[in-house]
Parts: sequence; C-alpha cells; structure tokens
Amino acid sequence: MVEPRGLEAKVIDLDAVRADTPGSHRGVFLDSAGSSLPPVQVLDEVVNHLRREAEVGGYRAAAEREDDLEAGYEVLARALGCDADEVAFTDSATRSWLTAFDAIPLAPGDRVLSTEVEYAGNAVPLLRRAAEAGATVEPVPSDESGAVDVAALRAMLDDRVRLVSLVHVPTNGGLVNPAAAVVEAAHEAGALVLLDACQSAGQVDLAGVAADIVTGTGRKWLRGPRGTGFLAVRKEVRDRLRPRQVDLHSGTWEAPDRFSLRSDARVFELWESSVADRLGLIAAVRYALDLGLANIETAVRAGAEYLRAGLAGLPGVTVHDLGTQRCGLVTFTVDGVAPATVRDRLRDRHITVTLSGTTSTQYDMTRRGLDVIVRASPHYFITRTQLDETIAAVADLT
Amino acid sequence: MVEPRGLEAKVIDLDAVRADTPGSHRGVFLDSAGSSLPPVQVLDEVVNHLRREAEVGGYRAAAEREDDLEAGYEVLARALGCDADEVAFTDSATRSWLTAFDAIPLAPGDRVLSTEVEYAGNAVPLLRRAAEAGATVEPVPSDESGAVDVAALRAMLDDRVRLVSLVHVPTNGGLVNPAAAVVEAAHEAGALVLLDACQSAGQVDLAGVAADIVTGTGRKWLRGPRGTGFLAVRKEVRDRLRPRQVDLHSGTWEAPDRFSLRSDARVFELWESSVADRLGLIAAVRYALDLGLANIETAVRAGAEYLRAGLAGLPGVTVHDLGTQRCGLVTFTVDGVAPATVRDRLRDRHITVTLSGTTSTQYDMTRRGLDVIVRASPHYFITRTQLDETIAAVADLT
Repeated sequence: MVEPRGLEAKVIDLDAVRADTPGSHRGVFLDSAGSSLPPVQVLDEVVNHLRREAEVGGYRAAAEREDDLEAGYEVLARALGCDADEVAFTDSATRSWLTAFDAIPLAPGDRVLSTEVEYAGNAVPLLRRAAEAGATVEPVPSDESGAVDVAALRAMLDDRVRLVSLVHVPTNGGLVNPAAAVVEAAHEAGALVLLDACQSAGQVDLAGVAADIVTGTGRKWLRGPRGTGFLAVRKEVRDRLRPRQVDLHSGTWEAPDRFSLRSDARVFELWESSVADRLGLIAAVRYALDLGLANIETAVRAGAEYLRAGLAGLPGVTVHDLGTQRCGLVTFTVDGVAPATVRDRLRDRHITVTLSGTTSTQYDMTRRGLDVIVRASPHYFITRTQLDETIAAVADLT
Repeated sequence: MVEPRGLEAKVIDLDAVRADTPGSHRGVFLDSAGSSLPPVQVLDEVVNHLRREAEVGGYRAAAEREDDLEAGYEVLARALGCDADEVAFTDSATRSWLTAFDAIPLAPGDRVLSTEVEYAGNAVPLLRRAAEAGATVEPVPSDESGAVDVAALRAMLDDRVRLVSLVHVPTNGGLVNPAAAVVEAAHEAGALVLLDACQSAGQVDLAGVAADIVTGTGRKWLRGPRGTGFLAVRKEVRDRLRPRQVDLHSGTWEAPDRFSLRSDARVFELWESSVADRLGLIAAVRYALDLGLANIETAVRAGAEYLRAGLAGLPGVTVHDLGTQRCGLVTFTVDGVAPATVRDRLRDRHITVTLSGTTSTQYDMTRRGLDVIVRASPHYFITRTQLDETIAAVADLT
C-alpha cells in the first residue's frame, strides 16, 4: 500500500508504529481521546506479568520486577519534565486529580479560579469542597479564540486565590490552553496551579509547563492500560499540600500512637495497585519517549489539522474546535444529522468516533449553545488515507 | 497421583480446582493471604479483555461487556450477602477502607474503637483523622484467646462512639474475630461497624455478618486480579455517610453551579477503572460462588488446621495463631532460625511463604513481644501431600 505522506512522515516512522499496533489496521480508530490502542509492547508487558502472577503469585512476580518498577519513576519523570521523587502512580487521572485537589487546604474566603472548559469530574468536587469550606469557584472568561484569557486571569488574581484549576486540553475540542502563561500569572500572585493534563499528556509536550501539580491518565494519548494514572508534584510546593488518603505506603506506623509521612510524591500513592498495569504504563511512557514527545506532538497536530480542514471544507459540516493552538481532538456536527447518528453511521463503515455532551463540560457547552458534538481523535498511527476515508464518509452523510 | 484426602475432598473437587490452577503444580504456593494464584477462568477473562481493548479501543470493548459489568454487582452482592445497590468496585481493599472511613463524619469528642490487631494501613489514617477532628482512637482489649473481647467492647461503648473499626482476620495470624457479636454490640450503642474483610473475604463466609460497611480485596482469598477491591454499604446507613472523593460517576453536574450525588453505593466509585481487572474480579467471585463459600471455608480451615497441627508437633517450632475460631493463615517461628531464613530455605524447596512484621500490626506484635513471624496461607487448591512436604521442610530446619 502506498501512503500519501504528510508532515508526520518526517518525524514518526508510520510503518513501524502501525506494525506495533495491530488494531490500527482494523478500520479507522479515531478515539485516542477516549481510550487509545496500546502498542504490542504495552499489551505484552501487561499480559506477561499477569501470566507470571498466575504462576508464582503476585508478590513474588512483583519482586522480580522491582528494579523496573523503580525505574518507572525516572521514566515518568522524564516525560513530565521533573524529578523522579516528584511523581506518583495512581489508578486513574481522576484519582490523581482528586488526590491532589484534596491535599490543597481551602479556608473560608479562599478563591479557586477555574476555566470555562472545566471538566465535570473536576467541577463536581470543586463546587462541593468550596461550598464545604466557604470558598468560591469562579470560571476565568475565555478570550475570543476560546482559550483561557490570561489578561482576565491576571485581573482576577489576588492574594485570596489559593488555586488555579486549569484543564490543559478540554474533553470537547482541540483547544490547547496557554498553560505556561497561566502558571506564570498564578505564581506571581502566589496561587498554586493544578494542571489537568488528562487530554494533553502523550500528545502535547509538557516539559515546558512548570505547573505545581500535573495529573494525567495512561489510557488516552500515552497508549497505556486502562486503570492507570499519574501525578507530579513539584518539590517546592510539597509542604503546602496535606495528603488526605494515606496508608502504610504513604506513612510509617512507628509506634502504637505515632506515625510519620514520607516526603516524596509517593505519599500520594497507596501501596496496593495492579503491578501489571503499572508495568504497562511504564512501557507506554518509554514507547512515547523513544518516539520523542515533540515528534508525537508534531505528528498528531498535523493529522488533526488535516482532518479538521477536510471536514470544514464539507458543506453542512461545522468544526467546533476553539483556540489558536490546537491538538488531536477534532469536534464537529453535521447539519440535520444527529451526532449519535453520525457516530453510528461512521461505525457502520468501521470508523470509530465518539460523542461529547453538555454534562462533561457544562460551562463551555452551555455558553456556546451546544448540546452534543461528534469527537474524532486521530493519533500518530492513523494514516492520511484513513483520514480521507473519514472525510469521505462524513461527506456521504450530508 | 493418589492424594490422601481429608475433609476437603467432601466439599471441593480438588482435581478440578487444581486443573484450573496451573500454578498450583509449580511447587507449594502458601501465600494466598498475600496475593493468590488466579484460576485460568480469571486470567483468561482479564487477558481476553485486554486483547479486545487493543483491537477496538477501551470504550467499545467496555460497551460490549456492559451487561456482564452490570451483572457483576449482583454477583458481588450475592457473595457479601447484601443487595446489588449496596456494593461498589474499587482498585484495592485499602482504597475501599479509606473511601468508607473518609465518609464517616468525626467531630471533637467522638470516639473510635479499634482492636489490638488493627492493620497499619488503617491505623495511620485512623490516628491521623482522629487527631485532626479532635476524636480519639482506643483499642478494645483482646480476650484470653486473642480475639476481640466483646464484653470489654460492651463496657467501652457509649453514645460518643461513632465507629468500631474491626479487622475480621488480622494479617498476622489465623484468628477470626467474632464479627457478628461485635456488630450486635455496636448497633445496640448506635455505633457504625466498619469491617475490614481484606483477609476474610473469599475464605470466611460473610453472609451472616451484618456490618454496616464491609471492605475487601480481589487478589487474596477471592483469587482475583491485583488492583481490585470492593466495598458494601448497607442502605440503612447510607445517609449517615458523606462520600469524599466524588466525580461525574458519583454525581451529576446538573447546571454550572449545581450537582447531585447518586444514592446507591456506586457513589463511592470513580468512573474510570481497569475494565479488564473488574471483569477478572467478577469471574473470581463467580468461581467462588460456584464452589460454595461455605465449602471453601470448610476446606481452607481443614487445610490450615492440618498444617498448624503438623508444625506445632515439631520440636523447636512455635505456632503463633490466636483465637478459637481460625482460618487459613498459619503463623510460626523456628527456634534459632531467623524468619527470613526460614522463608528463603523453604523457597529453595519451591515452597512459597511470607513474613509478617511489627509495622503491619503494631499493637498486637508489640504486646506479644513479637518482631517478625513466618506466614503460610494455604488455599483450598493445596493438597495434603504439599502440606506434608512443607512440614517436612520446616522439620529439616530445626
């Protein structure tokens, strides 16, 4: 098969990554923003460890991989641009976010600044804890491009702002928020920044973003197993956080009435986890580092722009992505065809897309008058031919 | 191979369960209290789902198993003797316990009663939250058998006791605490009982224990995957709990400034989890139900008593299990041989045992003057021949 090659050919070896991804040959998989296809290196790592556990038991199997598990902290830290003692593994991005958020003290009168693209999974606990603590949650307005308005943020910041909760890439569109500028502004005012990198880690290089806390998932753009997540906490802010859910891994029971907590980021982990899934996530991060995070970003952006342009050129199709800096999420609607129908009709042609609805991003969808939109999220392993196929399939619906 | 058959032959088909457990033929596996060997039915369920995720993505793979995932609540509820809307899945027993404990309001002056066999993973958060809330944690003394003294508990209970934290089976011995009697006493005083069934679920039938909250793990006696846990919350006490870590699965973001929480036990779950591991746990619980929980209890107890008696009969070997009702954990020391040496020498003979140290059960080990002990935990798939081999191997150390 001769593939028309675009920008990605220069940075990612498409044949190699597709050979590593058998699922990429079964139809057109455009749901890496949901739960992506792992490379065989990840699947094999998980399955082999599960088999080993069934042979010798979970504890001995884990002991055999102790060095690899320890090295995993270095690997994850490299991907996040921080030190190994600043990262922790969890079972999901939500867990990471909640664990970090719960550790940030909130007092009466404190303010939390959020954005218009805040995610429901964050918004519910934000509203709940703020109400409990007598604090407020205020969304920072967006600028005309749809990104968080950094000037408006600066105007809202004061010494009562404890926290800026920033969704790096919303679940409902290709927008990349200007994280570095938000961090700079927040730090000048002494506020912490909690960066939700659930949709950015693995497709947008995070190394240049000095957020105090970064949370993310394994299963999306990093192509790791479901049931994996991580967080990074800069050591400079560790003392300002008070971990809530702790166990004998986070602390040591030193005497019947005395315990102490560890000082690195692993204080946010619990002792028990799926070791197989952890090894799978480490393999996924290694795979991404081997390809190069900047190369991945370039390739994903190029593929998404190609799809976006193709869809935007179709009569009756509206692309809904905001922002000036964009990434791998492409959202659209087709005039007169319900989003669920678009999804189902594409699926009949072996093209996997998903939907994004109001309940995930209340603020944003409500203000834009949107209810449900179609979301396509091509990773670097998707070919131009597959994107052309998708554009043609959408054209047939109009 | 002709096996000498004991009590277990009447209740469990040993040949069948061993055929389902290839690992049971590789040496003598005596660490089901750590992380047990799953039957092939569990391993296949997990691996097949992981493979399906790699083919079509995690979301579509999960949608294909929606009915089985939903049925899993019924299955788990049956094993715990409660209703499907009273159970929730988590990623570990510790998570389950912390999630439940965090939801129990504690105010200044409140008392929490614990036991002398409290587990470190519980003790650290108990001490921590009590200190924070101005509450106290008091261990209930043990009776002469080593079980929690129910008469002493009754004498300690008053209307300031919010919670009785009961470890059903300690991590460091075969003792089964009298859970039903503790629940009865606590309920008369209006206190909640949080039953840590981490070491009992899957080997001790829980159906008769009406604890308000029960927490447990998949990987031990239930023979499920690592990274799985569960909890049960009786509907009668649901209103007395205030879930702490909630997301868009636990609640609904109804309007920009308003959310609501669901009323069943799934309020304690987060949306994202390893679907493969969840399916594996459901398969494990089904497997246990098919064998019969009472049959498993009978078989495990018989095997452990056999081992205990054999070890106790050896000169220079001391068995350390307390209590009158006992289960599958067998703990011992060998005069003049360090526990770690016992473990390593047994391992040289392909016998897997583990150690239990002071840091896991401070109160208990300290008061008994113990430092580290050897723990052997045979499940129903272990033969009498394998137990004889173990006894002979320990005899060779003396």
